[in-house]
Amino acid sequence: MALSHQTTVMVGRTHGVHAEPTTLGHKLAVWAFEMERNLERLAHAEEVASVGKISGAVGTYANVDPKVEALTCEELGLKPAAASTQILQRDRHAEVLSALAILGSTLEKVALEIRGAQRTEVRELAEPFRSGQKGSSAMPHKRNPILAERLCGMARLLRGYVAVGFENNALWQERDISHSSAERVVLPDSTTVAFYMLRTTLRILKGLRVDEARMRENLNLGGGIVYSGRVLLTLVEAGMGRDEAYAVVQDAAMRAWEGEGGFREILEANGEVKERLGSVLDELFDPAYALRNLGVVFDRVKDLKERLKVA
Amino acid sequence: MALSHQTTVMVGRTHGVHAEPTTLGHKLAVWAFEMERNLERLAHAEEVASVGKISGAVGTYANVDPKVEALTCEELGLKPAAASTQILQRDRHAEVLSALAILGSTLEKVALEIRGAQRTEVRELAEPFRSGQKGSSAMPHKRNPILAERLCGMARLLRGYVAVGFENNALWQERDISHSSAERVVLPDSTTVAFYMLRTTLRILKGLRVDEARMRENLNLGGGIVYSGRVLLTLVEAGMGRDEAYAVVQDAAMRAWEGEGGFREILEANGEVKERLGSVLDELFDPAYALRNLGVVFDRVKDLKERLKVA
Amino acid sequence: MALSHQTTVMVGRTHGVHAEPTTLGHKLAVWAFEMERNLERLAHAEEVASVGKISGAVGTYANVDPKVEALTCEELGLKPAAASTQILQRDRHAEVLSALAILGSTLEKVALEIRGAQRTEVRELAEPFRSGQKGSSAMPHKRNPILAERLCGMARLLRGYVAVGFENNALWQERDISHSSAERVVLPDSTTVAFYMLRTTLRILKGLRVDEARMRENLNLGGGIVYSGRVLLTLVEAGMGRDEAYAVVQDAAMRAWEGEGGFREILEANGEVKERLGSVLDELFDPAYALRNLGVVFDRVKDLKERLKVA
Amino acid sequence: MALSHQTTVMVGRTHGVHAEPTTLGHKLAVWAFEMERNLERLAHAEEVASVGKISGAVGTYANVDPKVEALTCEELGLKPAAASTQILQRDRHAEVLSALAILGSTLEKVALEIRGAQRTEVRELAEPFRSGQKGSSAMPHKRNPILAERLCGMARLLRGYVAVGFENNALWQERDISHSSAERVVLPDSTTVAFYMLRTTLRILKGLRVDEARMRENLNLGGGIVYSGRVLLTLVEAGMGRDEAYAVVQDAAMRAWEGEGGFREILEANGEVKERLGSVLDELFDPAYALRNLGVVFDRVKDLKERLKVA
Repeated sequence: MALSHQTTVMVGRTHGVHAEPTTLGHKLAVWAFEMERNLERLAHAEEVASVGKISGAVGTYANVDPKVEALTCEELGLKPAAASTQILQRDRHAEVLSALAILGSTLEKVALEIRGAQRTEVRELAEPFRSGQKGSSAMPHKRNPILAERLCGMARLLRGYVAVGFENNALWQERDISHSSAERVVLPDSTTVAFYMLRTTLRILKGLRVDEARMRENLNLGGGIVYSGRVLLTLVEAGMGRDEAYAVVQDAAMRAWEGEGGFREILEANGEVKERLGSVLDELFDPAYALRNLGVVFDRVKDLKERLKVA
Repeated sequence: MALSHQTTVMVGRTHGVHAEPTTLGHKLAVWAFEMERNLERLAHAEEVASVGKISGAVGTYANVDPKVEALTCEELGLKPAAASTQILQRDRHAEVLSALAILGSTLEKVALEIRGAQRTEVRELAEPFRSGQKGSSAMPHKRNPILAERLCGMARLLRGYVAVGFENNALWQERDISHSSAERVVLPDSTTVAFYMLRTTLRILKGLRVDEARMRENLNLGGGIVYSGRVLLTLVEAGMGRDEAYAVVQDAAMRAWEGEGGFREILEANGEVKERLGSVLDELFDPAYALRNLGVVFDRVKDLKERLKVA
Repeated sequence: MALSHQTTVMVGRTHGVHAEPTTLGHKLAVWAFEMERNLERLAHAEEVASVGKISGAVGTYANVDPKVEALTCEELGLKPAAASTQILQRDRHAEVLSALAILGSTLEKVALEIRGAQRTEVRELAEPFRSGQKGSSAMPHKRNPILAERLCGMARLLRGYVAVGFENNALWQERDISHSSAERVVLPDSTTVAFYMLRTTLRILKGLRVDEARMRENLNLGGGIVYSGRVLLTLVEAGMGRDEAYAVVQDAAMRAWEGEGGFREILEANGEVKERLGSVLDELFDPAYALRNLGVVFDRVKDLKERLKVA
Repeated sequence: MALSHQTTVMVGRTHGVHAEPTTLGHKLAVWAFEMERNLERLAHAEEVASVGKISGAVGTYANVDPKVEALTCEELGLKPAAASTQILQRDRHAEVLSALAILGSTLEKVALEIRGAQRTEVRELAEPFRSGQKGSSAMPHKRNPILAERLCGMARLLRGYVAVGFENNALWQERDISHSSAERVVLPDSTTVAFYMLRTTLRILKGLRVDEARMRENLNLGGGIVYSGRVLLTLVEAGMGRDEAYAVVQDAAMRAWEGEGGFREILEANGEVKERLGSVLDELFDPAYALRNLGVVFDRVKDLKERLKVA
């Protein structure tokens, strides 16, 4: 998806406020690499947890030959634990639960992006909505990002479960059984929640509604205020003092916010600006400049795709 | 330490209750392998966190050549992030904090072992106590495991900090700055706490007081009740019905608890038992049998020592 | 503030999506009552924590007359604990930390509201911004809600600290000292953070920039789509079948979203709708109707003001 | 139970180490008062949560008369929320979950006491054990405190659930639905777990096995070392220099630990000590002195019993 949205231009936002142009593909690329890290964490956690032990009541093989452990584990596709007590040590399970909690926070990030983008004032993205589906029986215009919201709630569950996992490791001597009542809840619940979250994220992304026109509209809000940084830089390069340039640009931006006209228009009405920038204004208000280096990120995405053997 | 205490025999306990013989070396071995896993987790977390980014306000390299990022990161010994927004994604930091929380739970486990073993009724281990140090000004006999207790409290701090780390990942769009106020606290505080915990654990283990006589005494509590499992098995092998054998052994164990005599004495007073086990009783009440397979664990410890290049 | 913004009309949003008209005063009222609950929780926690004990090493008054405890506590403005061990029980401190964590989540809610309202596409509220302050040196148009974002991060810290408080209660027998190393961090840090958060919230609210014009503009987005619920209801009351009415209204709303015209205009262009609603359309598109019952809430706010003796 | 065990003398322990005499009744008294605080917290939380709202999609009563809310709530035994959005604010639910997490930590404390007292070396308390029940099929002597251990694990679950509750409060504007998926899990799971924990604690306490002989034996471990504090004080009062007295007492205590004889015997063998304390030694080694003031606590327990109308 990152690759197919390489050039779906939209505004990048920091602090919730417009910053510079970006593309939907770039957001997706950020998530893709984070998911690769999640895969690695989960793979490592799986390896750490894929051990077995048949070493008796306190881990000394008092009544069992270590070979029995070795053979049984081999049969089960597990590695024998190098040392165990009555049980496998619970740092292993804590690692699994940590990996799931972090995975959850990644999916929450995706969900949060969609929730932000489906806000009435933004409407750039929307989660799938069946034709004919009612968002609200009382309010016919509503299309709520309920799947994404659900994911955000479930990420909290995973954080609650891992807190239990961290406490479960420091047991008494060769084992106390306090971890057991807690694990019987958090291991199945956290894996089930994570599975559901993954499936739901997939469903959202596969059916994601992308409103490119709206993205362009938002990008150009206030008549191109988002390009103020580059305008400022170019004014300075064109010889205006930095403080003066800053004042001019900020004033134009603020007036544009107040609805006194578009940012570009206001600038063009300023003789000095017009003189210095007249010939390059079109270029300055074109997102292509800000995005000219993005190819490097998408090349890395192509490598990632190769690496993960994604179809 | 695991290797030097290979044969320091003591009772293994599950549920806080005597189970079967083990050795102090075996406990240390369990911790050693867990610390190797902590090392791996920390190494992976360090790698995941050792990245840099100079990709501009929204991560698009709008005003900076990606080569600048590459060169700067190389200079700093970092890898450039494959994709970034205004910031590096916080799953990386969450992984660091997770690794520290799990490490904390391992050190808590070590501390808990010492606290349990320094209880007045147990007194098998004690943390270092300077000659002349007062445990309590009012109670001259007290030697409290205060370092170990302190470690247990600090493990809780690390669990509190990672909870913050998990919440810090799902930020708005190309970045909101909510993670910053929280990270300025939890990153320095958690690494400082972890460092202190490691140093204190080292100090405790280096100065650990091991009371081998007391370990043997506790092991033989009640006149060898800890060997009841093997006695039971041998009785059955010697032809006694399992239910009868269980009843005989449990009865003897319970009477020994009640102070009616030693477990072995009570058994020996039972004609049928005496007849069936007379010739092997010495062997049955010798911990050597239960520990005969432990060499396999210590061989793995030797490999670990090699692997970690421990002096 | 709730009272002075009783009639500052703006759109109410659920799921981030426009729902029905509300007023800024109503939001503030919701927070005010929640803050009263926080006050109650803190007052209760303070009472629970304002106890003292001088009852000796295990709480039995072995070497001290209970009158000493009574007199000393009286002097200090504390109540003597009804029963204590070496220490006061830590459920008391956990209650304090819980009250602070919940308080934090309330302030986070306020902060989140401002962050959402300061988004570029919304711009209804803004935290104080000193004249001449630069939001970003590179992007002159930016005004970021950094105080509100900071509060969101700090709320996470309070959640991390209370997790420690919950673990600190179950100590061994008459006391183990594991709580101490943890409390020395979380008690000062959580109270300091909470104090800073309260002060910062006050600062934000006192200097809050309210853009009423923008609120009205957003309320009327799409030409009054927010009134669709009431239009639907009135159409049905005027005799149109519910399914037909729903379809008509949803279609108009969707076309308005797509930019094919204002919601009201599209409806008016529909002969049947025009016929049924013509005479009441002005009323239907006036927020006054939706807000007619709000007085009841503000009367309760007046009582609250009285109750809390707020100036 | 506190009252019926007022005089069940046992050793009080701090840091897991013997400190001074106490009684089982005193431990129970400490828990009883803590449970009263839990009752108060739960009652307050119940009151805070026992509110209702029928105030429409954004809390403005746009389509419903506030009287409907008032009447419905009255019918349901709820109070109408003074102000609400689409939902009741989630600080209320967070308070409920906090109260449950703190309750859990109290029950964990009780459970931890029993686990510590059921250790093989201590054996002063034991949770109920059905006659004929097998603690371990392989180890006939084992009686494990598995219910108490289970409670400890479940207390962790409650801590995990409240973490979710704290995150659920700060929702977007008039409501986002992220809390819902999380609450559907944590509200039923936490209340179910808490109920089970309460019932199990009751079961344990009702069937608690108290070994008074063993308590006396442990109290006198080492020949009365637990009285060293009072011996020290009396030696000083009898004219010995404090440093000398401390050295004498600590030396005797340490030799007693090492098994060189009983603490009292060693002291009596010291001419100077014998001379100074000879006439009061019996009194010094009697727990009655340390417990003489405990009546004041049990009088408070009687008031509590009255207050709570406990049968």
